[in-house]
Amino acid sequence: MKQHFDHATLIGVGLIGGSLARDLRRLGLVRGVTGFSRTPANLRYALNHKVITHIGGSLKRELERSDLVILAEPVEALLKRLPVVARLARPNALVIDVGSTKGAIVDRAERLFKASNFVGCHPMAGREVSGVRASLLGLFKGKTTVITPGKGTRRAMIARARALWTAVGARVVVMSAKEHDQRVALSSHLPQLIASTLMNVAARQARLKDLARCLGNGFRDTTRIAASDAGMWREIFSQNRRHLVALIAAFQTQLARVKTAIEQKNNATVFDFMQTAANHRRRLK
Amino acid sequence: MKQHFDHATLIGVGLIGGSLARDLRRLGLVRGVTGFSRTPANLRYALNHKVITHIGGSLKRELERSDLVILAEPVEALLKRLPVVARLARPNALVIDVGSTKGAIVDRAERLFKASNFVGCHPMAGREVSGVRASLLGLFKGKTTVITPGKGTRRAMIARARALWTAVGARVVVMSAKEHDQRVALSSHLPQLIASTLMNVAARQARLKDLARCLGNGFRDTTRIAASDAGMWREIFSQNRRHLVALIAAFQTQLARVKTAIEQKNNATVFDFMQTAANHRRRLK
Repeated sequence: MKQHFDHATLIGVGLIGGSLARDLRRLGLVRGVTGFSRTPANLRYALNHKVITHIGGSLKRELERSDLVILAEPVEALLKRLPVVARLARPNALVIDVGSTKGAIVDRAERLFKASNFVGCHPMAGREVSGVRASLLGLFKGKTTVITPGKGTRRAMIARARALWTAVGARVVVMSAKEHDQRVALSSHLPQLIASTLMNVAARQARLKDLARCLGNGFRDTTRIAASDAGMWREIFSQNRRHLVALIAAFQTQLARVKTAIEQKNNATVFDFMQTAANHRRRLK
Repeated sequence: MKQHFDHATLIGVGLIGGSLARDLRRLGLVRGVTGFSRTPANLRYALNHKVITHIGGSLKRELERSDLVILAEPVEALLKRLPVVARLARPNALVIDVGSTKGAIVDRAERLFKASNFVGCHPMAGREVSGVRASLLGLFKGKTTVITPGKGTRRAMIARARALWTAVGARVVVMSAKEHDQRVALSSHLPQLIASTLMNVAARQARLKDLARCLGNGFRDTTRIAASDAGMWREIFSQNRRHLVALIAAFQTQLARVKTAIEQKNNATVFDFMQTAANHRRRLK
């Protein structure tokens, strides 16, 4: 089932929102896309590069004519924007977001969207670069998009959201917002924090120039995502604080354990630790 | 200056040794390569795939006819092998190793090689896969190889080692073994331990199947090297224990600091932490 839309309102024209708009237009799934952004330069770039077809003026007018609304701002801005979108969007418009945490958004949307036409989505296609200039066709191809419906979300809306993400090549997974937040704390938020910590330790210990002289692939891979947008991650960590802090504690326990084994020259324990990790990682294709 | 060799003895036919032999033969820099390995199946594979030209029988005979000796076993085996190689290798043969830690090896080689013809080398071209089956042409292209001469190492031998690594496309950097070990503790050993720890935490918290359902690029990048050979890393951590433990402690301090900031909802500190990491990582091309 292909999902066709007449006009879309895109609020937040960055990596994810911009890439989704590009794909939808290229696939002919939407005729026009009006973009809203707090950064006028982004909108001009998006218009010039055919990411969007119109620069937004009145949000009210755009929402009144849109049958698809894509909320692609950072989570905190998105939460503030929800009430006005819920009030002005057409009851039969599909309203989706692309936020990296889902609990607070889905909770609030459940109360605000009387037409039950909001579907929480998390396309797991982030990169270490951000902004509309980093947006590209095919970003979601082969990537997971998690859909997190609320209890009351209309079945038809969930189906339309699923069709939309499938059309752009994503592998769709459906789970509750709570389950999502718990899982991404482990699969995304903890790795991000660890990568950034590693980068900060390295930068404190050595001048970058010296570090660069002795660098293998390992350091590059392990810290790649440390280049990601700090403001976005600050918000994500704040939204998912409880889950994340518990996982940091678990990480601290494991790290302390292997550190002691290394200090005490306990070769068998160090080997087991590395071997267990290697076995798990090899199974994770 | 191209360096040509008549015959090479390769002790340890794995990813690094095998790849170097492939390159040297393809480039016509060496006529024959005799391989020694503790795993007979590796030698047959290497011979069948033209990585080596002969399977070693008598080490004495091979060393007597080799003008290039490549020591590519794991560090502990290599340390045990040094005395016999020092005794039997020709005084004008270039003897190099490819070990990931250099202090102990260079120390011992300085005492053992009366002809001062041993040159410690560390090609930073490790992958998350190992063994001769993973070896390939061009592995060293664009990668750093660190050369760590001892105080007495003959200049001519250093120049020949540099020419060899340059010929296979490596970017050669020269520093003392001590400086090398300090630097790779940060650029390689700490990231490896952190990646393995992250993988172990993830595997304890979730079934891999569930984890895989919610996986972005971040987790894959950050844990890629966790699949690396556990035995090799156990040895490296043991060889470089002092430097590594100090860096783990520094990592623990930074992680505890950002954890507290997240717990206490100290947004400014969390943002600064992430922003500092992002700035550093972006400058590290």
